[in-house]
Amino acid sequence: MAKVLTSREENYAQWYNDLVLKSGLAENSAVRGCMVIKPYGYAIWEKMRDELDRMFKATGHENAYFPLFIPKSFFSREANHVEGFAKECAVVTHYRLKTDEESGEIIVDPDAKLEEELIVRPTSETIIWNTYKNWVQSYRDLPILINQWANVVRWEMRTRLFLRTTEFLWQEGHTAHATRQEAEDETTQMVNIYADFAERFLGIPVLVGSKTESEKFAGAVETLTIEALMQDGKALQAGTSHFLGQNFAKAFDVQFTNREGKLDHVWATSWGMTTRMIGALIMAHSDNNGLVLPPRVAPIQVVIVPIYRGNDELPPIAEVANKMKDELTALGISVKFDDRDTQKPGWKFAEYELKGVPVRIAIGPRDIKNGTVELARRDTLEKKVMPQEGISNYIKELLEEIQENIYQKALNFRDKSTHEVDSWDELVDVLENKGGFALAYWDGTLESEDRIKETKASIRCLLKDAEPKEGRCVVSGKPSKQRVVIAKAY
Amino acid sequence: MAKVLTSREENYAQWYNDLVLKSGLAENSAVRGCMVIKPYGYAIWEKMRDELDRMFKATGHENAYFPLFIPKSFFSREANHVEGFAKECAVVTHYRLKTDEESGEIIVDPDAKLEEELIVRPTSETIIWNTYKNWVQSYRDLPILINQWANVVRWEMRTRLFLRTTEFLWQEGHTAHATRQEAEDETTQMVNIYADFAERFLGIPVLVGSKTESEKFAGAVETLTIEALMQDGKALQAGTSHFLGQNFAKAFDVQFTNREGKLDHVWATSWGMTTRMIGALIMAHSDNNGLVLPPRVAPIQVVIVPIYRGNDELPPIAEVANKMKDELTALGISVKFDDRDTQKPGWKFAEYELKGVPVRIAIGPRDIKNGTVELARRDTLEKKVMPQEGISNYIKELLEEIQENIYQKALNFRDKSTHEVDSWDELVDVLENKGGFALAYWDGTLESEDRIKETKASIRCLLKDAEPKEGRCVVSGKPSKQRVVIAKAY
Repeated sequence: MAKVLTSREENYAQWYNDLVLKSGLAENSAVRGCMVIKPYGYAIWEKMRDELDRMFKATGHENAYFPLFIPKSFFSREANHVEGFAKECAVVTHYRLKTDEESGEIIVDPDAKLEEELIVRPTSETIIWNTYKNWVQSYRDLPILINQWANVVRWEMRTRLFLRTTEFLWQEGHTAHATRQEAEDETTQMVNIYADFAERFLGIPVLVGSKTESEKFAGAVETLTIEALMQDGKALQAGTSHFLGQNFAKAFDVQFTNREGKLDHVWATSWGMTTRMIGALIMAHSDNNGLVLPPRVAPIQVVIVPIYRGNDELPPIAEVANKMKDELTALGISVKFDDRDTQKPGWKFAEYELKGVPVRIAIGPRDIKNGTVELARRDTLEKKVMPQEGISNYIKELLEEIQENIYQKALNFRDKSTHEVDSWDELVDVLENKGGFALAYWDGTLESEDRIKETKASIRCLLKDAEPKEGRCVVSGKPSKQRVVIAKAY
Repeated sequence: MAKVLTSREENYAQWYNDLVLKSGLAENSAVRGCMVIKPYGYAIWEKMRDELDRMFKATGHENAYFPLFIPKSFFSREANHVEGFAKECAVVTHYRLKTDEESGEIIVDPDAKLEEELIVRPTSETIIWNTYKNWVQSYRDLPILINQWANVVRWEMRTRLFLRTTEFLWQEGHTAHATRQEAEDETTQMVNIYADFAERFLGIPVLVGSKTESEKFAGAVETLTIEALMQDGKALQAGTSHFLGQNFAKAFDVQFTNREGKLDHVWATSWGMTTRMIGALIMAHSDNNGLVLPPRVAPIQVVIVPIYRGNDELPPIAEVANKMKDELTALGISVKFDDRDTQKPGWKFAEYELKGVPVRIAIGPRDIKNGTVELARRDTLEKKVMPQEGISNYIKELLEEIQENIYQKALNFRDKSTHEVDSWDELVDVLENKGGFALAYWDGTLESEDRIKETKASIRCLLKDAEPKEGRCVVSGKPSKQRVVIAKAY
């Protein structure tokens, strides 16, 4: 089969777009900036959702559902919040269509204008804190540990499938606490859950740190982030956890009687991960042949392809294949036996390579005679002939090995792409020529940060567990106590 | 504890609303007609969703996700469809807010007006068929068997928690087929899945039938429905499956080359079930003490409450309770051990009764001495003392028995509330005095149907598997070949 993808080396952005389309993950819709998530892409999202949901519930969170619409006035309550989101809000102004009597066309009924406009939620802090107000009187009503799976809308001017879309799917956690310490601990716990999820489940190594003042969430006191590195040397913010202090409690007047019997405002966090993570997954691991999916997130972990001519050769192959499929399924492995007669084996090989299926088994008449199969790994593209005997347990272990190998490969790439820089010229050299993360001293001022932004890069985060070390800011030469992570980013 | 609910006999509508609020299922939000689904209500929805999703996937369907917004022009393409939905559409007209320079207030930016207005989806046939157009060229691309879990918005004037809300959650299946027969079979298969789900999982007996011309889905050739009976004698449409013929394929020009090499329009179905089903679940089984949940849909199937004074008595009880919890969990049963010291046992008993937990176990010091527990069934309110030995397996069987008993009780009520009527007066007597389903001959005309609607009742369905029988229409006296189901409805 001819190569269906533009190569990464030729045009990385085009490679990404080709890959999303050709592997059947998603496509653009008729609505500007909104995508259609196709079944294969949605199956990946379901696996992510189920694992995150399990992790949230294991840490005491419950799911709930809040309205899609937010009254416009709610937005004005928290000053930074509205400033952050006002420019990208889809606004509902009317609630009825009608047939125009003159033209006969369908028009918006001018008589059906809302008294107060409704915003399609870009995030739900305001509607949720307006609700929590009625749920909290005493410290006994706290903590509230709620998560919501939902769609949100941010009117983006330039969109890219998964990475930046007008509508996207996500989860948003919104918790309420009696003390500052408890809310800060929750913020940290959730960013660590995101880091664990990214590394263990998606095979993507991440840096955990805090955002600068200028990069934090609109309305937050502090934003923690996980930052991943893509294969083109650009960073991608892959999940954020916000300590909101008492900002939203004050904006929506949510007070409680604490253990000492005094009135206080409630402490808050929020945290979210989105379908953008599918974009990160693609760009972290895939190659010029297509997707490379870590087994834990792969909708199909093993595909079995029969190699046969004429209908006589199929039944003995199908017998072996179905037995193997049953054995693998019993081990909790998802298997597809593709016995379609409408496509040739070569086409199927290319198709499942494109779709990133971790393990491919091919079985032909010779294998039936010899008691063997041909096994191919997607991550290394290695092929070898194996005995049928014991193949299921071998595959079970192999899937673990593939998961680990994909992670290690990404980790090695990140290590190789992380550079300590001690001068402006070194910083620019990394950003312009080498790519990847630059670790540089920064004096903590907005002025120096703005100068860095002029290179089209940004401070991705201040590492969470970095030891304080003395150095001099690469911009101003002023004293600095910590290197920060700088990179160009998606 | 004082009764927290208005009784059913006193005011059925108030009982329902009290129950939804007090059991913590949902509440009204600050946005007109939109509800907040609280954690306990959402946990029920998750159980419904997981079971339906399993059934859909077992019949070859995949999930996908389509945009929230639909361009206004798409609606005009199918004439009946737009007529059906135009009056209840939320319309997005702008994409930005700004600060008004004079007043300092947040206003909709008049410069950010959309060229074409976007409708917040009330249902997704139009955007989906516009997408399928690009997916289908040949019969080899068919069938497409896709389902979507999503939120939708229909601007309702009078809303009630779960039963009728402006925004609600649902699934909508949209399938595309090469032949009329295949699409009709799919329509039937899906209404049967709904019926099976309602009866087996939710314990709600349903009638399966087709809607009249005036009651069918806007854009459908035929609508199949499941109709449930609530305890106040009113019917509730609980799920619908539509045979759409080639209507949407023609509206969106979706043609394919069939096996004979000729161009034809694709055949379609759509089918949906919503959070309204939670309302049906509540009204089918619950009583004046609170919810009665069939075990299969209950988020907590067994609750264990310790009865103790002082902290010395708790440890031996907790030991037995935790062992029992582990055993039950190993059997796949969801258990909560409520050892909170902030609430008394009596309060907990009332709380779990209100929340409809199927089985309650109480363990006190005497039980520890005697090797017993007190077991209470929510459905019958029976209590008895049982030996601890073998209790887990007993409970496993008991949960099955409770599931069956709840269904049988609802079935007996429906049988008792179903009346064959042979005259207008008999029909009115059922509708006005007895309640329930009236089975009456109808001549098939819109005139007679409109006359029936004047009683505030409606033809719920024409039973799917009814034998043709000769009779006379209760309205016109004209010949009729089948009794139809008439009732007042939600």
